[in-house]
Amino acid sequence: MQKPQVGLVGLGTMGAALALNIAEKGFPIAVWNRTTSVTHDFHAGAGDLAARIVPTDTLQALVAAMAGPRSIILMVPAGQPVDDQLAALAPLLQPEDLVIDAGNANFHDTNRRAAAGLPFGFMGIGVSGGEEGARHGPAIMAGGLPIHWQRMRKVFQAIAARAEDGTPCADHMGEGGAGHFVKAVHNGIEYADMQMIAEVYGVMRDGLGMSAAEIAPVFARWNEGVLRSYLVEISAAVAGAADPVKGGPLLDMIVDAAGQKGTGRWTAIEAQNLGTPIPVIEAAVMARNVSSRRGERAAGEALYGPGPERVEVALDDLEQALIAGKILCYAQGFAMMTAAAGEFGWALDMPRVARVWRAGCIIRSAMLNDMAEALAEDPGRNLMLAPFFADHLRRTLPALRRVVAAGALHGLGLPALSAGLAWFDLMRTARGTANMIQGQRDFFGLHGFQRIDGLDQPHGPWAKG
Amino acid sequence: MQKPQVGLVGLGTMGAALALNIAEKGFPIAVWNRTTSVTHDFHAGAGDLAARIVPTDTLQALVAAMAGPRSIILMVPAGQPVDDQLAALAPLLQPEDLVIDAGNANFHDTNRRAAAGLPFGFMGIGVSGGEEGARHGPAIMAGGLPIHWQRMRKVFQAIAARAEDGTPCADHMGEGGAGHFVKAVHNGIEYADMQMIAEVYGVMRDGLGMSAAEIAPVFARWNEGVLRSYLVEISAAVAGAADPVKGGPLLDMIVDAAGQKGTGRWTAIEAQNLGTPIPVIEAAVMARNVSSRRGERAAGEALYGPGPERVEVALDDLEQALIAGKILCYAQGFAMMTAAAGEFGWALDMPRVARVWRAGCIIRSAMLNDMAEALAEDPGRNLMLAPFFADHLRRTLPALRRVVAAGALHGLGLPALSAGLAWFDLMRTARGTANMIQGQRDFFGLHGFQRIDGLDQPHGPWAKG
Repeated sequence: MQKPQVGLVGLGTMGAALALNIAEKGFPIAVWNRTTSVTHDFHAGAGDLAARIVPTDTLQALVAAMAGPRSIILMVPAGQPVDDQLAALAPLLQPEDLVIDAGNANFHDTNRRAAAGLPFGFMGIGVSGGEEGARHGPAIMAGGLPIHWQRMRKVFQAIAARAEDGTPCADHMGEGGAGHFVKAVHNGIEYADMQMIAEVYGVMRDGLGMSAAEIAPVFARWNEGVLRSYLVEISAAVAGAADPVKGGPLLDMIVDAAGQKGTGRWTAIEAQNLGTPIPVIEAAVMARNVSSRRGERAAGEALYGPGPERVEVALDDLEQALIAGKILCYAQGFAMMTAAAGEFGWALDMPRVARVWRAGCIIRSAMLNDMAEALAEDPGRNLMLAPFFADHLRRTLPALRRVVAAGALHGLGLPALSAGLAWFDLMRTARGTANMIQGQRDFFGLHGFQRIDGLDQPHGPWAKG
Repeated sequence: MQKPQVGLVGLGTMGAALALNIAEKGFPIAVWNRTTSVTHDFHAGAGDLAARIVPTDTLQALVAAMAGPRSIILMVPAGQPVDDQLAALAPLLQPEDLVIDAGNANFHDTNRRAAAGLPFGFMGIGVSGGEEGARHGPAIMAGGLPIHWQRMRKVFQAIAARAEDGTPCADHMGEGGAGHFVKAVHNGIEYADMQMIAEVYGVMRDGLGMSAAEIAPVFARWNEGVLRSYLVEISAAVAGAADPVKGGPLLDMIVDAAGQKGTGRWTAIEAQNLGTPIPVIEAAVMARNVSSRRGERAAGEALYGPGPERVEVALDDLEQALIAGKILCYAQGFAMMTAAAGEFGWALDMPRVARVWRAGCIIRSAMLNDMAEALAEDPGRNLMLAPFFADHLRRTLPALRRVVAAGALHGLGLPALSAGLAWFDLMRTARGTANMIQGQRDFFGLHGFQRIDGLDQPHGPWAKG
């Protein structure tokens, strides 16, 4: 076997899966893990692929086992461990070598590392799809110099998931932290998609009184239409699953307190920093947070009486509401990426982002094909203003309005759906109500306002003296 | 005149007003500004108060003009200028002297400075009420060591606004950055109060077709009831003001694009960091942001047709909705402060916070009296669970539900009111919908879930092998 040009550091769940995927696609790979036994166990368990894998016992040995120019993928915990590995590699590598952080880095860290003048090339890539994706086909959002992307393209496109049209879901997002940034937005949208599904599930369960077994086929049917997506598909499976212990519906046995690893929160904070509203994602982060406050929620119910009331809502309305909510959420997410591209000087190509998300990642869906096409027409335009989605929204908004109104009247909490609708209504109202806010601000702080007639009279009559 | 023990650095609008206020209350004060002519112009314009003001031309002269122990108030721009002044004062002061940052510091900076081992005492105080407040009675939220608060208490309580019961609105919030933190939350609530007023204004204008002249007396009437507050009072004045140029309603001439200085955004980011949802404030920040996107909003209206539709909503419902929204917003704000107290080790006293906000600041209102009492019963309890507010909410929530539903159905964007309602409905529902999210997370990432029967079977049947 020729000496590998690809190496990988960190054989945890994700690293091991990625290494096997790379070897399987025909690329020899050298691997190293801090704990030597992990490296050898991994190699011993690699079956037929072991022939293309070179286990090494030290970082020096890893580098020595590789042919140049080397490309070493780091799959270690985000933060200091990445900086530690970069420092350890610095004396061992040549300028033409390349180190690729494939972990869950904060994109600010990736920006910093890319600008730090490391004595070798550096990329940061977002890898989505969990262990299963890493092993058999993740979505890969690459950040770094175009020349480095060109070098790694063959490997990443070989191991990535493929969209239905056969295109690999691995592409270059932009320089520096662009790949990790796009991954963060992906994660925020994932929160929002899941929350909106949970909300329509709640309307079916509490508003319509449907059982989990009745709800499962509804999701399955939706998965054959516009909503076709991994998350709707697995929602059908989750709703339909039997409790392996007691036989009833498993969904009813699961505690209603959602965990979070903080990635949705990151996205919300970055959106605030960028000044680009993503209220649907914010609502999803809020809802997870409230879900964990079980004691307070129980006290609330005890004080205010039983929660959601029964209400007649058409299942078709729920499907339409979910379509509308999803479009609005993605419009916000893409607007945030457009703002970030301007802020950080990335050449983020929005249709390319949509295409990369079509397979391999959690938010993969049929609708992303259409989004890619709509964005291709005018990448900087807000998705809610693109003709294709305007048609969809015109059709589905009346249902979203009915669902949100029913939730408001009958105590069904629909924070994400209602946040999407309120944002839409502000965004489609030429004459808003912030004139009142500007009047107040001038009244108490003489902040001044503009006049619609353009006259330079920025204060009200209260501004005397 | 005896040598002053109080000094002030920075004679901009706020610093000058504060210095005059201090002198007026009988405290001799030494002042210094970087530009000497500003100092002398200030002194020359101080009228009768000039006798109690000692103008100085250098920082050294300021210190020399004072008797120890000195208390020097900084009113300079937040950030580096504060650090610069602290560095410049270090060689001039004694350990028993005290420097008080009264500017708009980020509370993290105040925490850092308080912990930095400065060679003199240090406080950070939030001052609310703008120039008018600084001159005649601000609300003062003090952070620092109790011993330093005891020393400054007399001055701060003398210059502060007074609640209707005569209590000065100046108090000690806690150590370090506690004062600046409480001020930040105040500013976030200010955003939310203003946004909710703008939303009900929009329902009157667009839903009911009322003119500004018809809207003004509604706010004025509300200001005589539960909603009595500075912001509702000035909303009446703003709606009722005539355009000094053309004579019509001024409010209709003001451009609907609200500025922001970023303080609402800060609060939203800190809430994310603390993991405490403040969705009403987030919605207010979002709405200001969208208000500035006039071009996109006009394009949205062109594409989707005219915005809000006429709809019959009872004015009484609007008043009740605003009461409910306000309670929910404050419940979120106080919950955020409770979380911060735990995170930063502050002995934040919630009733005291409510009392300090009763006068002098923008969000002053009659309701803060009741909040102080409700919080005194159980300071850590969510305000929506306090009996007094539960009574209010039970009475007003049906109206909030009707208003939010009408907005959703008729295209009136009500992001803050609907965010408050959705949060409430999640917080009063013992069995939420996050079981679906936990099922999904286990399906795609084997994150595991808890079972309501407590059995240790954290995975669904999809978790094979």
